[in-house]
Amino acid sequence: MGLLLDAGVVLLSDTRTNAGLDNIATYRKMFLFETPGERAIGIMTAGSLSVTQTTMARLEDALDDPDSDRSILRAPTMLQVAEIVGTTLSDVTSEVSGKMGRMSQTARATMLVAGQRKGGPMRMFLIYPEGNFIEATTDTPFLQIGEHKYGKPILDRVITPQTTLAEAEKAVLLSMDSTLRSNLSVGMPLDFAVIERDALRISRTRRIDADDEGFSRMSNAWSEALRNAFQEIDPI
Amino acid sequence: MGLLLDAGVVLLSDTRTNAGLDNIATYRKMFLFETPGERAIGIMTAGSLSVTQTTMARLEDALDDPDSDRSILRAPTMLQVAEIVGTTLSDVTSEVSGKMGRMSQTARATMLVAGQRKGGPMRMFLIYPEGNFIEATTDTPFLQIGEHKYGKPILDRVITPQTTLAEAEKAVLLSMDSTLRSNLSVGMPLDFAVIERDALRISRTRRIDADDEGFSRMSNAWSEALRNAFQEIDPI
Repeated sequence: MGLLLDAGVVLLSDTRTNAGLDNIATYRKMFLFETPGERAIGIMTAGSLSVTQTTMARLEDALDDPDSDRSILRAPTMLQVAEIVGTTLSDVTSEVSGKMGRMSQTARATMLVAGQRKGGPMRMFLIYPEGNFIEATTDTPFLQIGEHKYGKPILDRVITPQTTLAEAEKAVLLSMDSTLRSNLSVGMPLDFAVIERDALRISRTRRIDADDEGFSRMSNAWSEALRNAFQEIDPI
Repeated sequence: MGLLLDAGVVLLSDTRTNAGLDNIATYRKMFLFETPGERAIGIMTAGSLSVTQTTMARLEDALDDPDSDRSILRAPTMLQVAEIVGTTLSDVTSEVSGKMGRMSQTARATMLVAGQRKGGPMRMFLIYPEGNFIEATTDTPFLQIGEHKYGKPILDRVITPQTTLAEAEKAVLLSMDSTLRSNLSVGMPLDFAVIERDALRISRTRRIDADDEGFSRMSNAWSEALRNAFQEIDPI
C-alpha cells in the first residue's frame, strides 16, 4: 500500500510470493530508486512474479543504457515515470500472456509508483496490467495493490492527507497486520519506506522481520485495543 | 455471515444485489424455515441472483410437495438438509451456466445453511456452487459468503464458540459495518436472526434499515473507538 500525504509518501509491502499453498517463497516487492537531491521513486509490485521480475529487470536495465528512452531516473516528470512503468508492464504482460494463453492461463500484475522529481509535485500512481493508471488525490490519499481488502477498513477510517508520517507508519503496519492475520498469501518480512515531500531522496527504509519485537508488541497492543473497544461498544 | 456458537447460531446478511454499479436493487438474502419445537433452519445466499432465486424457489416448492424428497423441513438430519440445498444449488448452477456458457459468461452462487433438528446437533454449512460443502467447527466457528474480506479481521479477533449472543450480535454488525464502509456492492438494510441452541425455533429476527438510529450510533461509536485505540498505540 502507498499513502500520498502532505508530509510525503509512505510505502509498505510484504514479501510473500506463492505458486500454490505448497510453494511459498520470499521476494522483495518494493524497489527504491534515487538520485539524491534530484528525484526519489518507489515502486511496489503485486501479482505474477514472472511478470513483475521481468518488468523490474527491464526498468533496471534501462537505467544503465544511455540510449534508452525508458529510464525512470531520466524521465522529466513523475507522469512520464508512470508511463514508462505502465508501458513496460503492459509489454511484459502481453508477452507472458501470449505464452500462457496457449495453456488457457493468464498472468497479471499491478504496480504502485510513487515519488517526486525536483521542481515537480509528489505523485503516486497505481499501474494496471494493461499499462493504464490512476493517481492518488487528496480525496483518495491511499492506493493498494494485491490482497487489499482486509486492510482497507482501518485506512478508510484514519488516513487523510494531513496524517503525520508517524501516524501513517502505525496505520500501514496495523493495516498489514489485519491482512497478515486473515490471509496466508501475505507474509513477513515487511518492507517500509518513506519519501518526505521535497526531500528528493529516500528518507527512511526499514525491513520488519517476523521476529521484530516492536511489530509484535504493536500487533498485540492493537488486538488488545480492538477487543477492549469492542467490549465498550453498547449493543443496539 | 454465520456464527456457530455454544449459545446458538447467529446470522446476518445484507440485501444489496447489483448487475453493475448502475443497476442496484434490494433483495432479501436470508430465508428462515421452522417447524417450532421440531426444527429451525436459516439459509443465506450470495452470488448470482438468478441462481439463488431459482434455488430458493425450488427448495420452497419442495416443502409443499408431499412426494418430494427435497423438503428441508422433512429431511431427517441437518447433514441431509445441507445435501438437499447443495444438490439443488448445483442443479440450478449447471442449468443456468449452460445458458450462460453460450455467451462465455458464468453464474455462480454460494449459500450458508444453519440450524438444528430435534435430537440432533446444531450445525452450519457453507455450500459451494458445485453442491459440495464445508462445516463450521469449534476451531472455525464462523463462515462467510459473498464480499467477506473487509469484515473478517474483527471476526478473527473476537469470535470464539464461547462468545455470547449479545456479543455476537455486536460482532456481526460491526463486521458488516466495515464492509458497508469499504464496498459499494454491500448495502443496507440488513437481516439479522438468531436460532438459540435447542430452542428449535427462530429465536429472534430483526431488519436493520439504513436509518436505524441504534445501528448508526453503534457504527459511529465503533469508528470513534477505533480511532481512539489507534491514537493510543505506541509506534514501533
